[in-house]
Amino acid sequence: MRLVKKIKSMQNLSNTYKRKGRTIGFVPTMGYLHQGHLSLARQADRDTDVVVMSIYVNPLQFGPREDFKRYPRDLKRDMRLAARVGVDIIFAPEDKEMYPQGHSTFVNVEKLSEGLCGKSRPGHFKGVTTVIAKLFNIVHPDIAYFGQKDAQQARVIEKMVEDLNMNTKIKMMPIIRESDGLAMSSRNIYLTKEERKDALSLYRALKIAEAMLKEGKSNQREIIARMKKSIANKPSYRIDYIGIVDAKTLQPKRRLEGKVLIALAVWFGKTRLIDNIVVNIKKPACPGRSYSGQARETSNQ
Amino acid sequence: MRLVKKIKSMQNLSNTYKRKGRTIGFVPTMGYLHQGHLSLARQADRDTDVVVMSIYVNPLQFGPREDFKRYPRDLKRDMRLAARVGVDIIFAPEDKEMYPQGHSTFVNVEKLSEGLCGKSRPGHFKGVTTVIAKLFNIVHPDIAYFGQKDAQQARVIEKMVEDLNMNTKIKMMPIIRESDGLAMSSRNIYLTKEERKDALSLYRALKIAEAMLKEGKSNQREIIARMKKSIANKPSYRIDYIGIVDAKTLQPKRRLEGKVLIALAVWFGKTRLIDNIVVNIKKPACPGRSYSGQARETSNQ
Repeated sequence: MRLVKKIKSMQNLSNTYKRKGRTIGFVPTMGYLHQGHLSLARQADRDTDVVVMSIYVNPLQFGPREDFKRYPRDLKRDMRLAARVGVDIIFAPEDKEMYPQGHSTFVNVEKLSEGLCGKSRPGHFKGVTTVIAKLFNIVHPDIAYFGQKDAQQARVIEKMVEDLNMNTKIKMMPIIRESDGLAMSSRNIYLTKEERKDALSLYRALKIAEAMLKEGKSNQREIIARMKKSIANKPSYRIDYIGIVDAKTLQPKRRLEGKVLIALAVWFGKTRLIDNIVVNIKKPACPGRSYSGQARETSNQ
Repeated sequence: MRLVKKIKSMQNLSNTYKRKGRTIGFVPTMGYLHQGHLSLARQADRDTDVVVMSIYVNPLQFGPREDFKRYPRDLKRDMRLAARVGVDIIFAPEDKEMYPQGHSTFVNVEKLSEGLCGKSRPGHFKGVTTVIAKLFNIVHPDIAYFGQKDAQQARVIEKMVEDLNMNTKIKMMPIIRESDGLAMSSRNIYLTKEERKDALSLYRALKIAEAMLKEGKSNQREIIARMKKSIANKPSYRIDYIGIVDAKTLQPKRRLEGKVLIALAVWFGKTRLIDNIVVNIKKPACPGRSYSGQARETSNQ
């Protein structure tokens, strides 16, 4: 496995692979790898000839009061883990390489970026799409891998690729969870023992919503109320949002039909965690029959 | 010469050329070709193996009250002209191909896009950079050619390419003028006979400014006043702006040193024309001597 720090070197490497007709799989990360990241790299290793993983804590996607400085970093550990799952190249540029003084070009996906996390983290997705556009231009991947954990991010990136005619296929991979159900996240290490225990209530709330939808419930206010009740409630905890939206447009839905994304973000002390579940609600089989009470089929992502 | 209308076909063609190791030169245009465009294609033909010219009147870069509908279009004539100067592929997509319903991703170069034309045409450069980002992703050019006529546009695109690490070299080519000095533009056909005559005053004003700088004049207000006086003045004419800025940053300069861009936009009736000149002002040879009165060297772009 090779460590590349310079943009120009990475670009030259990618160009060489391309000329040889080799396919490139790309896993962009902010490092401090967990099994979620590694599952993306494993898939890339199955699909493509060369696996490139970027490790870069992108300052542009952090708000001024967010955890950019505190975000965990451990390149040596990451390299050890990445080597084991088939990563061929780690691209780990420095900030001054990625954003030299005077950088002023931004890629923005309007609408999709505005709800859910976009509402509480203004500018976040603009930072994400800008860095991903840069990384795609540097790495030239045939396929890039994103986790469903960051559902809105993945959707925003798919839309960017589509709208800007980028020559990269986006593959979304399922959420990897700890054995007790907590979605894996580099930020989980911030949690105290008590917060870690209470954070389990996120997945619990999502499973409750899923079960209600399976039972045919369609009153969104009721579903959200039940979710809120099931999320651990302490003075230092705060629900940022619970959203029930169309999985593609990320817009609220009047009728719960098709692929529905239930997403939430909750603060446990100083740590903001996100999680989500996609439920596929079949349209009524016989047109004309009333909607409520129809059979529904659900899937976890 | 081949006419391609579909994005996917163009992408496949470019990929094939790339795999064969052939270089692609790209000339993006809005059609209604004049000698300026053709000079770009000729240069591309000298530099690269395959010359792609796009002909697309990009709705995104026109304001709601601008001349999008009226903009001259003549694909057959353009194809005849392009074939003569070595163009191999004309890429002429339709609007619904470039901006299908729901398109919502934009590329924006902040700061550089804000002054000069950006001030009177809000959103114009966002439209330009978005379409050029798309076209670059479709055509994958090794070198793309832009005319110095649209000096701010060329500079904004250079900055986008640099900031987003795009794998394309930008080549800026000099303004091509009619024998009497009027900068070639597809919009010149809008002009009445009288306006056409009066439009010559643009280049005259630029030459006056250049001469003043050569003489060592450094009072920008004085230079602009002299330019204004020399521009044809009729009730239906209106100076949009005259700018003296740094040719790279497009920001006003307190001291006229280095490469200075003098740019202007003037309405002749319903037609807005732009023109510019770059003057290279040498720094004082001996430090310590006062600036005014130093020798200056100028160049026309």
